[in-house]
Amino acid sequence: MSERMRIAINTGGGDAPGLNAVIEAVVLSAYNRNWEVYGIKQGYQGLLNTEDIMRLTPEMVRNISSIGGTILGTTNKGNPFKMAVENMAGEVEERDLSDRVVQNFHRLGLDCLIAVGGDGSLKIAYDFFKKGIPVIGVPKTIDNDLAGTVVTFGFDTAVSIATEAIDRLHSTAKSHDRVMVVEVMGRNAGWIALNSGISGGAKVILIPEIPFDMDIVCEKIMEGEVVGERYAIVVVAEGAVPLGGTLVHKGSGEAGRQEVLLGGIGAVVAKSIAAKTGKDTRSIVLGHLQRGGSPTTFDRLLALRFGSTAIRLVEKGLFGHMVALSPPNVTSVPLEVAVGSTKCVPLDSDTLLTARDIGISFGQPE
Amino acid sequence: MSERMRIAINTGGGDAPGLNAVIEAVVLSAYNRNWEVYGIKQGYQGLLNTEDIMRLTPEMVRNISSIGGTILGTTNKGNPFKMAVENMAGEVEERDLSDRVVQNFHRLGLDCLIAVGGDGSLKIAYDFFKKGIPVIGVPKTIDNDLAGTVVTFGFDTAVSIATEAIDRLHSTAKSHDRVMVVEVMGRNAGWIALNSGISGGAKVILIPEIPFDMDIVCEKIMEGEVVGERYAIVVVAEGAVPLGGTLVHKGSGEAGRQEVLLGGIGAVVAKSIAAKTGKDTRSIVLGHLQRGGSPTTFDRLLALRFGSTAIRLVEKGLFGHMVALSPPNVTSVPLEVAVGSTKCVPLDSDTLLTARDIGISFGQPE
Amino acid sequence: MSERMRIAINTGGGDAPGLNAVIEAVVLSAYNRNWEVYGIKQGYQGLLNTEDIMRLTPEMVRNISSIGGTILGTTNKGNPFKMAVENMAGEVEERDLSDRVVQNFHRLGLDCLIAVGGDGSLKIAYDFFKKGIPVIGVPKTIDNDLAGTVVTFGFDTAVSIATEAIDRLHSTAKSHDRVMVVEVMGRNAGWIALNSGISGGAKVILIPEIPFDMDIVCEKIMEGEVVGERYAIVVVAEGAVPLGGTLVHKGSGEAGRQEVLLGGIGAVVAKSIAAKTGKDTRSIVLGHLQRGGSPTTFDRLLALRFGSTAIRLVEKGLFGHMVALSPPNVTSVPLEVAVGSTKCVPLDSDTLLTARDIGISFGQPE
Amino acid sequence: MSERMRIAINTGGGDAPGLNAVIEAVVLSAYNRNWEVYGIKQGYQGLLNTEDIMRLTPEMVRNISSIGGTILGTTNKGNPFKMAVENMAGEVEERDLSDRVVQNFHRLGLDCLIAVGGDGSLKIAYDFFKKGIPVIGVPKTIDNDLAGTVVTFGFDTAVSIATEAIDRLHSTAKSHDRVMVVEVMGRNAGWIALNSGISGGAKVILIPEIPFDMDIVCEKIMEGEVVGERYAIVVVAEGAVPLGGTLVHKGSGEAGRQEVLLGGIGAVVAKSIAAKTGKDTRSIVLGHLQRGGSPTTFDRLLALRFGSTAIRLVEKGLFGHMVALSPPNVTSVPLEVAVGSTKCVPLDSDTLLTARDIGISFGQPE
Repeated sequence: MSERMRIAINTGGGDAPGLNAVIEAVVLSAYNRNWEVYGIKQGYQGLLNTEDIMRLTPEMVRNISSIGGTILGTTNKGNPFKMAVENMAGEVEERDLSDRVVQNFHRLGLDCLIAVGGDGSLKIAYDFFKKGIPVIGVPKTIDNDLAGTVVTFGFDTAVSIATEAIDRLHSTAKSHDRVMVVEVMGRNAGWIALNSGISGGAKVILIPEIPFDMDIVCEKIMEGEVVGERYAIVVVAEGAVPLGGTLVHKGSGEAGRQEVLLGGIGAVVAKSIAAKTGKDTRSIVLGHLQRGGSPTTFDRLLALRFGSTAIRLVEKGLFGHMVALSPPNVTSVPLEVAVGSTKCVPLDSDTLLTARDIGISFGQPE
Repeated sequence: MSERMRIAINTGGGDAPGLNAVIEAVVLSAYNRNWEVYGIKQGYQGLLNTEDIMRLTPEMVRNISSIGGTILGTTNKGNPFKMAVENMAGEVEERDLSDRVVQNFHRLGLDCLIAVGGDGSLKIAYDFFKKGIPVIGVPKTIDNDLAGTVVTFGFDTAVSIATEAIDRLHSTAKSHDRVMVVEVMGRNAGWIALNSGISGGAKVILIPEIPFDMDIVCEKIMEGEVVGERYAIVVVAEGAVPLGGTLVHKGSGEAGRQEVLLGGIGAVVAKSIAAKTGKDTRSIVLGHLQRGGSPTTFDRLLALRFGSTAIRLVEKGLFGHMVALSPPNVTSVPLEVAVGSTKCVPLDSDTLLTARDIGISFGQPE
Repeated sequence: MSERMRIAINTGGGDAPGLNAVIEAVVLSAYNRNWEVYGIKQGYQGLLNTEDIMRLTPEMVRNISSIGGTILGTTNKGNPFKMAVENMAGEVEERDLSDRVVQNFHRLGLDCLIAVGGDGSLKIAYDFFKKGIPVIGVPKTIDNDLAGTVVTFGFDTAVSIATEAIDRLHSTAKSHDRVMVVEVMGRNAGWIALNSGISGGAKVILIPEIPFDMDIVCEKIMEGEVVGERYAIVVVAEGAVPLGGTLVHKGSGEAGRQEVLLGGIGAVVAKSIAAKTGKDTRSIVLGHLQRGGSPTTFDRLLALRFGSTAIRLVEKGLFGHMVALSPPNVTSVPLEVAVGSTKCVPLDSDTLLTARDIGISFGQPE
Repeated sequence: MSERMRIAINTGGGDAPGLNAVIEAVVLSAYNRNWEVYGIKQGYQGLLNTEDIMRLTPEMVRNISSIGGTILGTTNKGNPFKMAVENMAGEVEERDLSDRVVQNFHRLGLDCLIAVGGDGSLKIAYDFFKKGIPVIGVPKTIDNDLAGTVVTFGFDTAVSIATEAIDRLHSTAKSHDRVMVVEVMGRNAGWIALNSGISGGAKVILIPEIPFDMDIVCEKIMEGEVVGERYAIVVVAEGAVPLGGTLVHKGSGEAGRQEVLLGGIGAVVAKSIAAKTGKDTRSIVLGHLQRGGSPTTFDRLLALRFGSTAIRLVEKGLFGHMVALSPPNVTSVPLEVAVGSTKCVPLDSDTLLTARDIGISFGQPE
């Protein structure tokens, strides 16, 4: 290890509360070792076009942990292995620019890259690791769908915001005897829907892991009428699918999300409930509210621990690894563990059993 | 005045944070005079079908001031003067059932009605006043469009929720160099958009009072590119209209809102910005998040003061009046002042001047 | 008026949420006129020792409105008319250094001073105005005790924080059948105690404007025992005084507060309640929690309007005036209106009547 | 197992956010099995004096999960094995009334007791288990000092409230160049101080696990002066002790806390810092703010999962066990694991390493 490590850090994929906390802890923990940290802008793009790279000093990052967003910027586009580039004929074609990244990395005298990102960004990080760049991954996803870590920063905030929104909608639904359908994020996993639905007192939760039957959803809603509970909250994960249905959350990340925003599964479910039950039914898409802004204290601390642990992994030379939460400790796992698969809600998880036990329906026969 | 007044109270129109606080203060202030309060369910419907009427005791209302919604229920339908009723041929026709309300009111031995509601509900209250029912109005609107009072409860909460949402979207917009269009409520007035847009640091605010020019909106957004501010928040009131445009917020209240939810002005503006500027642009409709849940402390206190003042107006026999905020005091104005007109943002208001001064565009040539 | 005004701004007295919002609006509104703004550090000290004065640019202030504190720093010491200075014998003596401030002001080519502060700082500003400096005041007090304006920024935040704290203490008091005494700020006025006490559901509120009788306080608390309400919240203003008592909130501002922190009136009241009623009684001093951190949306907007209006007053040449809220507008009043007197809770205010009506005792015979 | 189980539930020890969520999930999950739940008031006192016992129905508990406190009441007194009783001579003596509890339990036809409490209450539960009562424990502590579970509900809320308070104090400390000493709860463990101190950007954190040296604390504070960081936040656990000192947090739970409230370690540390550094230094005791009110979403969900899992443990006949979080699952451990020892912060925990790495001092030579 060089005397005075030169560490690069980037943030990739969608925004998540806690990114700045990771950056703060990385810079301060490096400073504590007399190492230098360089911020790479816009994911990997700052390693293709290196003029924006800047030295990050303690003064620049102190107490940014509670601020939303990322001071480094981020993007969902820009995989250097498959970069969309305009050719001389003016057509857009995909090109592999990864060698240029590797060259720039060495030319700049960098010793290691701390890559903060979700499955997409970590997969790219892993590919660069295989090309010889000493990489440490820091998992980031508000969807909790990354394997290898019990949870990552951003998820607690997303669930908290969704729950707070459901709480607000609750009082209006109750006052007006309405059905309120709330569509939340989560891509192809039901974590945000499950956790916020239980916390917020939903009557029905629809998640990708359990294909739903619209008739059973409506039966559940009408059940309440008999006992005088004439309103209901239905929480729908953006990736939820009807039984035998083809309504799949297309693509991963932002691209898929954008489609869903323009009349997604929540609106479809709401329309169907209104038609079948005759109840006044409204739908709302929480969308980007779930991924921006200040992290919860839980996420702020977790992100600080992740950032600081990343520096300790550098110290140990554990490249090709990703920091991971294995409560109560932050440890590490090989990057390939995380990038291989999506972590879905297990059907025997106690959280799911709890939901059923307290009377929540998943739109399936019991 | 009878020795032991029997007071009825109802809540009408859309949900608003603070309704329960009004009820709490009415009941406790009446109890303090040894008077009785009776809760009327679902706006005026509880006076057509009187079986649900219930005595409200201090135990039932103590400390409900912070709870969202209304324990009396509310509805946007059900004007007894124009009630939709199914006739014998199975057709729905409008009928005037107001006499039945008056009869029931007297049959129940009630001395007065405290009607908590927006322009629609207060208009009905005023009509009943003209039919001889001693009525006291309590203004309620999250939109701040009621005349006669500087502000009512619910508005501060709506603005706070919208601002908090904008804050969250801010960080994501900034991290991704995006334009984020946020559509907020307000019906045909721009109060929520103006106040939350300034507080949340919007670059553009579009309100019904100032028809906007899409080209000027886009120019403003592109202005930032030059100085490196590559993101923007655009706050759009649901009732905003393009210059020379016909896009009017149709109908009042919930009905109009529902249409807007399914692809409203926010989505239209976002699509246009994306097309004209080429910027990655997203839109979000805050919708019912703005009207449910716990009131802010400001609204909680104001609603308690309104409810308590209503009882003092009963004591003074000031029927046909509405409580009103004339800072720092809560006073009263004749009901007809409030129900006659919509309170829009005056073009010379200092808030509007402030917005312009700090660099916010309204989509109009300066 | 010079072509390109050079405006100085300082913040004085205790911290208040919204100070940065005032600064942001002043700088942006000046920038909009092509004027320059210079930040004076630590109240008036930056005009004695001018090396820290810095040009404030739009980039430095954009979106700081939601950040607590003041980027200019502040202090409770440092009245240039009575500055504590160490003489050659090593003794501290008071000296009038105001001429040096005036000289520096002119030497720096400044055209006007926007002084943001409470009664102390505004009094100093007024004195400088009388010495020829063109001054605009911006009122700041979390205590709401400044005359001339219906309310100032900081107060809504203080009341909100206090109410939220009372809400939290409520549940514990109830679960444990306890009396909880909460001491809040307010100096010699009862505004924070009154507003937060009503909002938070206190049983007893003690304010400086109504000297209290400890026996009546205890009777009120024991009243609840009979009906099974075995807990109580007592909100005590730091300046509350017992009937015939001498327990005065000493000095103004921070100095007085510090003494109170070390066993103030709240602890005295709690001890007395415990002794007289035998109830498990606890006390808590909210202290500085009430004055730091992010402003509420209400305060953020009000502070932005104040800052922007201050620039418009400069434009109009209304020196010697202070911006003021006269709802719904921000206007201005002569500085002497504000600095002359303390604004206490009027005994006939509707807020006070509301408190009594909903069953709150002020520790006085009814 | 009887066809229709009759389950008793009580809550003991200090208030903690999430107690009502446990009760809600227990009642709803029992209802789902057609079982009955009986609420025992005031910890174990409701089993000595059984007239208050009441059947808990789904209607009584639905959506109470977000409400602070406990609908069953709680107390820190009242161990039936050592009950303070007045004898005929009027003296208070300790008596073992546990047999009466056992008799009442059987007389009421109860099948099992779900005891929700901290170390004290769970120890009593365990003793009753040894006397033949089928007991299931649910761990509760805001201090995170219970062994056997990674964390319990209440802790996340306490840390969040403390962090939010520190954030608020931060801005004032910075604006005034002050040292702010914040005393937080935690009994003899430093969890709350450590987690909130890191999240809130403290410069110094003092915890019971690391005896501190006042001179090193002051050195750390003065370090900032050199680089222009003239303020500091010092977070002190209520159980923190000086090196070689005797200042021990006396007694456990509420009793110890009360003493500390009247001039605890925070005030001592603040006085010492002021004397040694000459800096303007203030102290604040967060006290009961940390344990009351609504739980965070994290705690709300965890408490619901705990309550529901408790019912599943009853179903499995796992008496003498306590529910426990072993992320990502809620499982169970024998009660004796939890009641034997206090869980302190391990000196090699990654959270502690993170704190040191980002420059936080624990008042010890490095």
